[in-house]
Amino acid sequence: MPTLNEIKIAHNRIKPFIHITPVLTNSSLNYLAKAELYFKCENFQKAGSFKIRGATNTVLQLSDDDIKKGIATASSGNHGAALSMAVKNLGGITKVVMPNNTPEIKVRNVKRNGGHVIWCEPNQISREKTLREVLDDTGSVMVHPYNDEKIISGQGTAALELMEECPDLDIIVTPVSGGGLLGGTLSYVKEKNKIVKVYGAEPMEADDTYRSLSTGEIQSNKTTNTICDGLRAQIGTVTFPIIREKVDGIIRVDEKEIISTMRMIWERMKIIVEPSCSITLAAVLNNKKIFNGKKVGLILSGGNVDLNKLPW
Amino acid sequence: MPTLNEIKIAHNRIKPFIHITPVLTNSSLNYLAKAELYFKCENFQKAGSFKIRGATNTVLQLSDDDIKKGIATASSGNHGAALSMAVKNLGGITKVVMPNNTPEIKVRNVKRNGGHVIWCEPNQISREKTLREVLDDTGSVMVHPYNDEKIISGQGTAALELMEECPDLDIIVTPVSGGGLLGGTLSYVKEKNKIVKVYGAEPMEADDTYRSLSTGEIQSNKTTNTICDGLRAQIGTVTFPIIREKVDGIIRVDEKEIISTMRMIWERMKIIVEPSCSITLAAVLNNKKIFNGKKVGLILSGGNVDLNKLPW
Repeated sequence: MPTLNEIKIAHNRIKPFIHITPVLTNSSLNYLAKAELYFKCENFQKAGSFKIRGATNTVLQLSDDDIKKGIATASSGNHGAALSMAVKNLGGITKVVMPNNTPEIKVRNVKRNGGHVIWCEPNQISREKTLREVLDDTGSVMVHPYNDEKIISGQGTAALELMEECPDLDIIVTPVSGGGLLGGTLSYVKEKNKIVKVYGAEPMEADDTYRSLSTGEIQSNKTTNTICDGLRAQIGTVTFPIIREKVDGIIRVDEKEIISTMRMIWERMKIIVEPSCSITLAAVLNNKKIFNGKKVGLILSGGNVDLNKLPW
Repeated sequence: MPTLNEIKIAHNRIKPFIHITPVLTNSSLNYLAKAELYFKCENFQKAGSFKIRGATNTVLQLSDDDIKKGIATASSGNHGAALSMAVKNLGGITKVVMPNNTPEIKVRNVKRNGGHVIWCEPNQISREKTLREVLDDTGSVMVHPYNDEKIISGQGTAALELMEECPDLDIIVTPVSGGGLLGGTLSYVKEKNKIVKVYGAEPMEADDTYRSLSTGEIQSNKTTNTICDGLRAQIGTVTFPIIREKVDGIIRVDEKEIISTMRMIWERMKIIVEPSCSITLAAVLNNKKIFNGKKVGLILSGGNVDLNKLPW
């Protein structure tokens, strides 16, 4: 698992290519949560999500030969767009295997950043099979969206910035899907200051990480009927051991709560965030015993929402 | 008309009660506009718009007796909510006369800030008649949404902050409705540095200021069929002379352009802004001859949008 020092090095490596995103506060949400909330706004990040952090950290460590061969990945969208941007910065091209129910805005983001889209069915088996075919056919180099130490180190830099700006947080909450962001956050935070608690927030409808922790073994999602299109992947073999060792808990949230907190963030903070990160606020509002009176950092991981398909 | 010094005093007076809002930039919008754009984000302001500036500046200068009598105003929403908040801060109550087609979110904002809503028809005559009745019946003190020197001074403080943060702007664009924001901006900017140009952006469907300037006399809007619910008021007798003397031009924008730039700001900047201020970006994008290569400040005046009634 990445060390604190590796995450610091990653941050220095990627800094010229990313935004240092702002940390916002909102008094009416503080009042509602009975806590001090600090929102790390990765929705304002380049390509619209934190994914540019891991992608850039990985791509900068590839050789010229690798870049020439081309890059490939499977992604529900944000990693695909971020990787496409990072690879394009070095003059290469990325092939992105995407589920055919991906929101239009995420498809356009991939294309706008020079990525080539290859469709698959919206399940883990089709995703892996299609990617394997692309790699075999083209000889591209694979950059996994989360199950990779370099990706995890890159994603950990969001927590690094958050703790630099807010050094006295009691708790940090991130969404969890494949585990790159949560794994990177845990790797950094628990070495930096182990009294800071870290929770993952996961949709009830795709709660493989919660179940994996309960059983001690990686579990699959049979269905992923969640509005959180960024949280449908399965926890990885590299990310799971980090989470199992370090996380303070996984908080599951139902769809209604995800949608209502998404709307709350839009209306009160006047910022556009995805359902996939509104889930962090839902986790806080529905678990007052954990968060009451605490200083809580929430990573708002992305802002790529299809404005034609809002859930209200 | 307010002097630069009066606007500085207003700023010192209201500072403890408002947010110093951020100025955001966006490289993809710069690319599109072929200009450097600096967005003054009053959508993040308290009560969701710049209106808290003028309201606070005015209310702080009222006597205890006035506050006790109660305050009244007519407002399409943002001024009503802001005034309600400013008055409530001093322990008083505000009666807000609102057109019956006001977006639900603006009605809720008034109520949440302790204001009492009194409905009128969505036209200038009904608005004035209803307000007159309220004043006669209750003895409340009227705080006009724009046609008042104290309000204009307060609204000018947004431009003051913008010029402090971006001292080398070539042009500033604000929306224009009753003229408080544009009048305050002109009063400050033209005294501070008269080579900075200032434009007002106005819906084609409610272009009374444009026509008033053309004829030299205040003109009415027969209809106000614009999505910009904040830009349906008529230019005022106090604001018009300031604008006539100082403005570099009024740019009219059609509805389709307003809606498409609103969506563009949401999708690219990940912030929620009203159509009533998206119009400033539309003015820039549709008038490249004026703005090409320039440093342009745009005042994003508010973010109170009804998420159930989006125009796409």
